[in-house]
Parts: sequence; C-alpha cells; structure tokens
Amino acid sequence: MQAISQYQQLISDYFTALHLNKEPKNLYEPIEYILHLGGKRMRPILTLMAAEVFDVDCKKALAAATAIEVFHNFSLVHDDIMDDAPLRRGNETVHEKWNINTGILSGDAMLILAYQHFEEYEPKIFRALAKLFSKTALEVCEGQQYDVDFETRDDVTIPEYLKMIEYKTAVLVGAAMKMGAIVAETSEENANLIYDFGLNLGIAFQLQDDYLDAFGNPETFGKQVGGDIIENKKTYLYLKSIEFAKSDEKEQLLHLFSIQPDDNTDKINSVKEIFNQTGASQATQLAIKEYTFKAFETLEQMNIDAGKKALLKVFGENLMDRKV
Amino acid sequence: MQAISQYQQLISDYFTALHLNKEPKNLYEPIEYILHLGGKRMRPILTLMAAEVFDVDCKKALAAATAIEVFHNFSLVHDDIMDDAPLRRGNETVHEKWNINTGILSGDAMLILAYQHFEEYEPKIFRALAKLFSKTALEVCEGQQYDVDFETRDDVTIPEYLKMIEYKTAVLVGAAMKMGAIVAETSEENANLIYDFGLNLGIAFQLQDDYLDAFGNPETFGKQVGGDIIENKKTYLYLKSIEFAKSDEKEQLLHLFSIQPDDNTDKINSVKEIFNQTGASQATQLAIKEYTFKAFETLEQMNIDAGKKALLKVFGENLMDRKV
Repeated sequence: MQAISQYQQLISDYFTALHLNKEPKNLYEPIEYILHLGGKRMRPILTLMAAEVFDVDCKKALAAATAIEVFHNFSLVHDDIMDDAPLRRGNETVHEKWNINTGILSGDAMLILAYQHFEEYEPKIFRALAKLFSKTALEVCEGQQYDVDFETRDDVTIPEYLKMIEYKTAVLVGAAMKMGAIVAETSEENANLIYDFGLNLGIAFQLQDDYLDAFGNPETFGKQVGGDIIENKKTYLYLKSIEFAKSDEKEQLLHLFSIQPDDNTDKINSVKEIFNQTGASQATQLAIKEYTFKAFETLEQMNIDAGKKALLKVFGENLMDRKV
Repeated sequence: MQAISQYQQLISDYFTALHLNKEPKNLYEPIEYILHLGGKRMRPILTLMAAEVFDVDCKKALAAATAIEVFHNFSLVHDDIMDDAPLRRGNETVHEKWNINTGILSGDAMLILAYQHFEEYEPKIFRALAKLFSKTALEVCEGQQYDVDFETRDDVTIPEYLKMIEYKTAVLVGAAMKMGAIVAETSEENANLIYDFGLNLGIAFQLQDDYLDAFGNPETFGKQVGGDIIENKKTYLYLKSIEFAKSDEKEQLLHLFSIQPDDNTDKINSVKEIFNQTGASQATQLAIKEYTFKAFETLEQMNIDAGKKALLKVFGENLMDRKV
C-alpha cells in the first residue's frame, strides 16, 4: 500500500491528463475550473486503496476513482446553486463566477463525463461499476432532497437525519471503496464488506463534521466554527439536544434557533452550553465512536491478510482522529 | 412492423408501470409530472421501429426507448429553467410549478434514471448502449451551449448553425434509432447506417421546424407562427437571408431583428417578405429536401429487405410532409 500523498499524486497526474480544454469553451471551462480547485481527493484515494487491498495495481482503478471525483464535483456545483453559496474551497463557485445557467449545464455535462470514465473497463466490470454508480448517484440526489425538505420541517427525527447523511454523504464513500473492489474482481462478499466499511466511516465522518462545526478548534478548523449554529441547521447535536432537553432548555434552544443576530458570539456560546448541558455533545461523540467501531467490525470479517486490515484501520483512525 | 399508435400504446403502458411514486416525494413527483405530460414520444417510437427493422421483437427495446425519452424530458426540464419558459406542452414547466431548485435536482435524478434503464440488458449490450448514450447526451449539452452562445453572437455561420442543431436535436434521433439496432444485435454497419438515417432526418426535421415557424399555417401549426421572429432568433432562414441579402435588405433585416414592438404583425410580415425576396425561403426548403434525401440514401445501403426500407421511407416522408 502506498502513502496518501502518492495516491494524491497519481490522481493529480490523471486529472492533469484529462483533455477538458474542448469546445464549446463556455461548457468545459467551468468544468476544468472546479476540477482543478483541488480538495483533499478523499473519495478517489479510497477507490485506489480498496483496489490495492484486494491485490491489484491501484492504477487499474484510476478511471473509476476519477468517475467518483467528477461526480462529487458535479454534486457540489449543483448544490452550490441550490444553497446560493458564493464560495467553494475558498474560491468563487461556478454559478457565481459564470452564472446559474452555466452551473446547471456544465454540471449536467460532468455527470455524463463521470459515466464515461467507466468506458475504460470491459463489459462485465463496466456494467457493475455503472450500476453501483447510478444507484449511489440517485441516493445522493435523494439525500440532497431530504436535506432541503428538513429545512422547513420541525419534526425531523434522529433516524431520518441519519438516513439523510447516509444518502447525501456516506453512500458515496461506500461506493468509492466498493468500486476498487469491483475493479479488483474480488468476491462479492468482500466488495459488500468494504462498502459497509466505507458507509459507516462516512456516517461517522459526517457526524464528526457536525461536532467539529460547534466544538472544533477555531485555529485549525477550516470553516467558521459555529457556522451550523449561525444558520440554524438541525444537525445531530441539535436534534439530540431537543430530544434530551428539559422544557426550559428546549424553549431556550428553539428561541436561539429562531433568531439571526448581527453578532453571533452570544448565540453560539449559549447553544454550545445547551449542547453540553443536555448531554447531546457526549451522545454525538458516542455515535461517532459507534459508527467507527461498526466500520472496524466489518474489516474483521473481510477475507484479506491482517496487515491490510491494520492499514485500513489506521487510515480510519487517522480520519476520525482529526481535530480539524 | 406495427402502426405508430401501437408503438405509442406500448410505450404508454411501460411508462405507467414505472414506479415513480417513491420517497422523497419532492424529488419524484416532478419527474412523474413531466413524464406523464405526454408529447408525441417520437424518439422512443424510433427505437422500437429500429429494433423491428432488424428483426427482433420491439418489446426487447422498450427499456432503451424509455432511457431515450427520460433523457429527452430531463433536457426539457433543465432547458426550460435556462430559457425561463413558463409553459411546456400547454402545462406549467417543472420550475414554474415547483421552483428552480426542484427543477435542477429532479432533472439530475432523471438523467441518472435514464442510465438505469440500460440495466435491463446483459453486459455487452449494456456497455454499447450506455456508451452511445453518454456520447450523445454530452453532444446535446454541447448543442445547448452553442445555442446559448449564439444568442449573443452576430457572426454565426451556417455551418456553425447546422452543427448546433445537429448536436442539440439530431444526434438524439440518430442515437434513438441506433439503440434499436444495438438491442437487435445487427451488424455495426447497419447500426451506423440507421444512425445516419436518424441524424439526417433529425436535421431535416429541425430545419423544417424553422421554416414552419415562419411559414406554417396558423390554424394547424401548434405554436405561435412567427415566434422565432418575435424572439429575434437566428434560425437557418435568418442566416441564409443575411448571406443572400443585398445591402439594403440586410440593413432592414438587422433593424427588424433589433426591435421588439408591442404589436409584432408588421415585423413578422416584413421579415417574411425579406426571407422570400432574398431566396432564403427556397434555400431552406432545398436544404430540408437535401437532408431528407441524404437520409433516404443511407437506407439504400442498409442490409435489410426492401419492404422494411419502404416502411422507413414512408415514415420519413410522413414526418417531412407535415404542415404542422
């Protein structure tokens, strides 16, 4: 297995070699722009790692890894339109730099381009990859729709929230890893186990994102700490607080989530105090541990040598250990 | 070969059996809505016809035909957002009935759903269909981008315009027919010939649309006659007029295409007079005939019996004979 930075280099080289300076420029330039804004390339790295775990050269998985990353970027372009977001990775979003119509059409083209990367593979593998991809992509759309729906609902349950983050975020992590397994032509059992590993790690990762958004170190956390609180987002922390809160705490939290003050400092501090008082913070940390543990459990069942299991576990631990 | 109405019935039954009343409702209801607004179902009919031309039961091509129709409707939903169109087939457009975000996300889901219909087929056919589909879908996006680009350009050439309508409209007609050939597992030569038949017929059809928009019978033409003139659209008629016009005619036409009067009657009549005077009307009719002839020529080369050639020719003639 290679170091993360080596996987990143492979992906970066592969992306550089994609010929995207095509006509019409107004369609392809935005695609080149968003694909080269970078990001951590976490999903395609997982595809390459999974291929190596099942004993094939990770280069064989580069096309599938690219499909995953192009799809991820497609979803960012369209989500950013829907969220009216001005910035992505510190740069202008596509619809902000160009316009909404460009964001829609270039996004559409990216979704199609993602599928085209599977054409690198022979029919049986092509079909398996494209089928998993379609299922996953549709779930991501469903997750995005649930997220939109939840904004205007005040009766979202914890299971509903978990399903939303599973669809919106975690299934793509699971699929990224399963694609590596498909390319490696390992057993269906192994492929499903590594999917579950990725899925559970993805849920843990998203819950940790919720947690760090409130309790992360402002000096190392990439985004504005308290961003979700400012936007009155019903995260796991919030929903658990509502579940556990005494009536006065609940009343206070509902009030705090109904206001949008100019200076958010007091609001953020008060909400975080309630998150702690109600036990929602601890419950969130516990849920993160549980999903991480569930991911590691599936590793145990996998038919690969112990060294590879250990490497995947270390990767998972590093991912979940992040304070940023 | 079956009558058009029988193909339509088959497609209608297949669409009714699609289970689209799924969760989340806000994602799937708009999809059900647009897919059941109807339309002539011309593209999926062509897929079924092509399958029968190459001697397989057209039912075998229903899934591929559905993919084509779902894709076509996806492109309408996103194009209608871009064009800010309030109506589609006499009903509210998706983004008008719901909102723009719904139009974007439900459209995305439709593009994915289109691919899923190919999962009916075994790996080799699946791969061939999905590959043709991706190539075609990307060309449709490129065609739409050229169309958008042309709105703000005043130096569009005839070859550029022809390429635009080829990509935006005709390639999907060609692909619809080729998919029937792929499902029927005919020779690659036959498959490419029927693609060319559909492609050229598609170009002829779009040029005729341009022509009828100005010179169609107001009592039988579905849309408002003169709609393109009102919107100052640079159609084939317009571009040919500019090419052929004497300097005073050109000046007059450029002026007419720079104004937007409240009552368009005079503008429409004057523009049509220039279209006739310059010879652009005749040139357009000639181009329609040439592309139709080109389509029929490819039929001749096809390795199928004479009766089937005759049927495809009659279908093409009926299509091009329409006055509406």
